[in-house]
Amino acid sequence: MKNPVLNKLVIFGVGLIGGSVALALKKAGNSPQIVGVGRTEESLKTALELGVIDIATSIIEDALQNADLVLIATPVAQMPAILKSIKPYLNSKTIITDAGSTKADVLYCAKEILGELSSQFIGGHPIAGAEKSGVTAAIANLYENKNIVLTPTADTSKQAIEMVTQLWQTCGAKVSIMSADTHDNIFAAVSHLPHLLAFALVDNIAARPNAEQLFSFAASGFRDFTRIAGSHPEMWRDISLANKDALLIELNAYETQLSSIKKMLQDGDGTSLQRLFERASVARNAWAQDKKSV
Amino acid sequence: MKNPVLNKLVIFGVGLIGGSVALALKKAGNSPQIVGVGRTEESLKTALELGVIDIATSIIEDALQNADLVLIATPVAQMPAILKSIKPYLNSKTIITDAGSTKADVLYCAKEILGELSSQFIGGHPIAGAEKSGVTAAIANLYENKNIVLTPTADTSKQAIEMVTQLWQTCGAKVSIMSADTHDNIFAAVSHLPHLLAFALVDNIAARPNAEQLFSFAASGFRDFTRIAGSHPEMWRDISLANKDALLIELNAYETQLSSIKKMLQDGDGTSLQRLFERASVARNAWAQDKKSV
Repeated sequence: MKNPVLNKLVIFGVGLIGGSVALALKKAGNSPQIVGVGRTEESLKTALELGVIDIATSIIEDALQNADLVLIATPVAQMPAILKSIKPYLNSKTIITDAGSTKADVLYCAKEILGELSSQFIGGHPIAGAEKSGVTAAIANLYENKNIVLTPTADTSKQAIEMVTQLWQTCGAKVSIMSADTHDNIFAAVSHLPHLLAFALVDNIAARPNAEQLFSFAASGFRDFTRIAGSHPEMWRDISLANKDALLIELNAYETQLSSIKKMLQDGDGTSLQRLFERASVARNAWAQDKKSV
Repeated sequence: MKNPVLNKLVIFGVGLIGGSVALALKKAGNSPQIVGVGRTEESLKTALELGVIDIATSIIEDALQNADLVLIATPVAQMPAILKSIKPYLNSKTIITDAGSTKADVLYCAKEILGELSSQFIGGHPIAGAEKSGVTAAIANLYENKNIVLTPTADTSKQAIEMVTQLWQTCGAKVSIMSADTHDNIFAAVSHLPHLLAFALVDNIAARPNAEQLFSFAASGFRDFTRIAGSHPEMWRDISLANKDALLIELNAYETQLSSIKKMLQDGDGTSLQRLFERASVARNAWAQDKKSV
């Protein structure tokens, strides 16, 4: 079978994530025609001016005509409305994918809204980001050597898997395939829980009468530990709720771990504390050694 | 009253912390004579070769002769042995200070060992550090614009407060004076607890059968959140135990905070979650804006 051909790509949400895909494709050469669809004319105009997209439109029917691939790179909360708006104009070959941080909820939504056409949908999550957002922050090499997870179901068409794999590989990313549940479990542990923990710490300190004094003595360890507490509140509300079950499992496991550390402290059990700190520091430094590109 | 004159400084532990003090004094000009005392000949030899210290010795009596100031910059666990070893050679004007991360335990130890001479001791904690350790990592500007906390007691001599304040100001640091208990409470919240939380997260993940898979999808948020989990295990065992009471209070407050977040998740209470995330992200970003130099 020939690789599915990508002549026309439609991007909903031309911000950091969608814009960087467009720039990566253009940099790789043989770029498809790239159509940007967005809510605010302002940001689409900027995307056009920066050469990130070839065409800007808010008319879904025009955008979808002969589209080979639709990439939804908006906040996850906009997914249902967008899927509903494109459904009437999807042809039997148009592939649809997304770039959201949670996957089971997105699959559920695609199945509900697209029905039979959901075999043309494949969920995706590029593990890349930056401090900044918006199309002006988009860069061609955002995905180079980064992980991208695709979460096909038993119903997902081979064409969908192939086209979206190819898309991300062209952007320089390493593609992993797994179930949406596996994805959500993994990211509950290594991303969603750490965000929750950082938000919790900062809020706890900020609420105190002596918050100003406390913050004034916080230094570089605090800066790094809490960097993710500066993340977008609505986005993290949505992620937390979308991945609630897996996140609660992680939170429970973490509470158990904290209880056991508390007991070591109460008992003055230096040996156990040191052993735990040693395991963590060995694992953390080995990881950092391994993942220099992160 | 004239400022106390610093003609001879003795540093126990010429590593990153002690070595950077020496380099800062030399850079500032009019440097006192700097004598390094250490356990391993190797590192003292390096300190001498790098011009960090003027004299290296392991003979305490020689080192202490006519010393105006003794800076103990070794791991806290070595404090008692060092205080015992210098006590016989202290004259009535020699000031003693340290650079440890906890202060109430150090004060207690100084009082126990030095007895009446403990009025010549003042605890100190420079809020600065780096990924690397050892004298080869020492730099002259490590303390520039950094906080240094001094924790005098009612018995501490004015000379001690003045000389050590002057020492750190010459290094470019901002000196704050507070009680040892206040210090330990502040750092339990903004440093010791975050370290514990990061160690706990990494150890919890590392212990799982699918640890390798989990680590392989951890990205930049995880990297920053867990950086402090790569810290020195023995040092953090000592800090945790030395500041056990304040740390347990922080741990309890944090557990309460986590329980309340868990409830919001269980209830699907997006409004409360978003409000909490918003408070945290506003506070965190304001802090980062304020503390650009950290």
